[in-house]
Amino acid sequence: MNLKIETAQLAAELDTLASFSEAPAPAVTRIVFSGTDRQAREYVKRLCADAGLAIREDAVGNTFARWAGSEPELAAVASGSHIDAIPNAGRYDGTVGVLGGLEAIRALQRSGFRPRRSIELVIFTSEEPTRFGIGCIGSRLLAGVLDGAADTRLAGKDGETLNHWRTAAGFAGDLAGVRLPQGYYDAFLELHIEQGPLLERAGIPLGVVTAIAAPASLRIRIEGEGGHAGGVLMPARKDAFCAAAELVLEVESAAKSTGVIDTVATVGVCEVFPGAINSIPSEVRLEVDVRDTNEARRDGVLAEIGDACVGVAKRRGVAVKTETINADMPAQCDARVVESLTRACATHRLGFQTMVSRAYHDSLFMSRIAPTAMLFIPCRGGVSHRPNEYASAEAIECGVLVLAETLADLASK
Amino acid sequence: MNLKIETAQLAAELDTLASFSEAPAPAVTRIVFSGTDRQAREYVKRLCADAGLAIREDAVGNTFARWAGSEPELAAVASGSHIDAIPNAGRYDGTVGVLGGLEAIRALQRSGFRPRRSIELVIFTSEEPTRFGIGCIGSRLLAGVLDGAADTRLAGKDGETLNHWRTAAGFAGDLAGVRLPQGYYDAFLELHIEQGPLLERAGIPLGVVTAIAAPASLRIRIEGEGGHAGGVLMPARKDAFCAAAELVLEVESAAKSTGVIDTVATVGVCEVFPGAINSIPSEVRLEVDVRDTNEARRDGVLAEIGDACVGVAKRRGVAVKTETINADMPAQCDARVVESLTRACATHRLGFQTMVSRAYHDSLFMSRIAPTAMLFIPCRGGVSHRPNEYASAEAIECGVLVLAETLADLASK
Repeated sequence: MNLKIETAQLAAELDTLASFSEAPAPAVTRIVFSGTDRQAREYVKRLCADAGLAIREDAVGNTFARWAGSEPELAAVASGSHIDAIPNAGRYDGTVGVLGGLEAIRALQRSGFRPRRSIELVIFTSEEPTRFGIGCIGSRLLAGVLDGAADTRLAGKDGETLNHWRTAAGFAGDLAGVRLPQGYYDAFLELHIEQGPLLERAGIPLGVVTAIAAPASLRIRIEGEGGHAGGVLMPARKDAFCAAAELVLEVESAAKSTGVIDTVATVGVCEVFPGAINSIPSEVRLEVDVRDTNEARRDGVLAEIGDACVGVAKRRGVAVKTETINADMPAQCDARVVESLTRACATHRLGFQTMVSRAYHDSLFMSRIAPTAMLFIPCRGGVSHRPNEYASAEAIECGVLVLAETLADLASK
Repeated sequence: MNLKIETAQLAAELDTLASFSEAPAPAVTRIVFSGTDRQAREYVKRLCADAGLAIREDAVGNTFARWAGSEPELAAVASGSHIDAIPNAGRYDGTVGVLGGLEAIRALQRSGFRPRRSIELVIFTSEEPTRFGIGCIGSRLLAGVLDGAADTRLAGKDGETLNHWRTAAGFAGDLAGVRLPQGYYDAFLELHIEQGPLLERAGIPLGVVTAIAAPASLRIRIEGEGGHAGGVLMPARKDAFCAAAELVLEVESAAKSTGVIDTVATVGVCEVFPGAINSIPSEVRLEVDVRDTNEARRDGVLAEIGDACVGVAKRRGVAVKTETINADMPAQCDARVVESLTRACATHRLGFQTMVSRAYHDSLFMSRIAPTAMLFIPCRGGVSHRPNEYASAEAIECGVLVLAETLADLASK
């Protein structure tokens, strides 16, 4: 099989996709169901149609582009990722798996390969948690981890529900119908930038992911007492932001205290009310993300954060409420799919290392309904979710090549 | 002189004024130059016109409503306050001085009193710093503490300048022309709620303010390194929000460490970028307010905060930039005006105590161009800048009565 990746064309397509952004280049901001997300979807669908793929969209906007196999009644082999981007992000997170997945299919088409099983490209809705506070909404629904109740239960800061946003974006129908049965896919693969520095540091072009870390996220709401910044003396204060500041430092120290490098915790969202320079904060809302490759250790950090909330509430006379947004199980990748990936690396004489994904991916949920694995490529400095996120054309080419080879292998069986 | 305050009508007018709000009752949000601010201005001007007062507006929207005296060429006696309100504030801060000042004039008119000097009600623009990050813009311009350059130098978070906002609100002309000459007013008086608990606690109906504390405010910008919340390990992080959390606690401890109850410091504004749950904060902006009755002690706290910024920057490898928004001088009230106020209290057999204003007021700047004093009335629990801010109709009546008596005294001389 003569696989030739059109790297320059793929790079140009990634550039075009990056132009659908609410933030000026090089930053990319593309919130799910926004105008730029809808433009980006149209662009990707057009590219899929140009490649002769048959397109289907489900009620939440997950998009499936199918290259029919010679035995279309068999379970398909799928690959995909997401195109939404957090505020002020970069251009490679997710998109490399979508446009790279498409280029893998086109390379197979050009090579004259004819798949036995259908090969399907999947573009997942709302991998990023920006709008609804919870990530991987599309893949959670596909896997049945979220059910139809999410339609009205999930809402953004604007108070508008998932139902409002998806129907406004043109995705109608019953959300419960999104779920796919076990066995619908024979295998699922996701190509992605590493979002960490290990491959680059080791000088290894590819990472074959054997497990995906289990993230958990919390909302913490601190209610103190507001008042005029001049009028209320220090001993009388119940400043919600001072209490929040203590919690932020406790979250950091809880993650560091496990003594294991794999534990990370982040307070990425903070809202201070009323938010005026001359007003004592009466309420603060924090959002906390805790990850570990070991679920028990991660839950230990969550428990420590819970204890810190109780301590701060008592010491400062504020009310602290915590709410678990989600606490997912870690995923083990499928041995057969991992093996197919490693064989493809060998075929193309590309070095790889097996590794754990610390970041969150749709594969975490796809692994519940399909044999799943991921393929990582290095990104500069391990930087992700920032405007200077960068993966070289050569790195992407290696990833697409091995993805194509693996899809061909799996689709032939 | 038979002074009769129409307390019920005044209470109804305060209620109506509170209805011009972007927040639902009982909260009041009325940002300067917003639609609700403009509606509120129209309402107050109509009441002034109904009282037969001649209205003038300057280029920044300061509004002057004059009751001409029998010798109109003499410098007028003035009283006033503001009607803008921070987000989620109450209904008495500022408004009691505006509508109460108007009712004082109407009570004098009803009594048959005929002033020698003109009496002028002043409604100051943007006492609150919400939109432009600095308070008392109207009175600063009147006193020459801000000059015409503020027109393009001051801008809101939306990037729009003072010039944009004031002209959009219909206030044209050269900002430099707002400044009033020394001697333009023979005296200035401001009636205001205390915004602290002292009068209520002491059971004393009135506070005669002899000095106004000197506030200072800072903007602190912390630049760390962002990244994916899963991908960057704890030892490699330069989390701007963790650095900010340390600074928030340092600000609190700097204020407490003076050992003097009069020192207060508040971090009321915090913005976290990019502000996504799965993204390490790359940048945080804080706004800090420091007040003291003693300028040297206040500046000591500012210096301690500056040292803390240097320390955090070094320890965490982040960049911390501080910018002084303003650092005003404290004001001493004028002995003659204070004496007129205390005499008026005695005339009406109302108890008073002399006190210091810890909060920021337009009087701080008016004191630079006119003999100035303030009159405080108690507010429940000392609460201000919150929806449950409350001053009783009786407390307001006492304040308006003494204000009217004092205006009559000063306008007769």
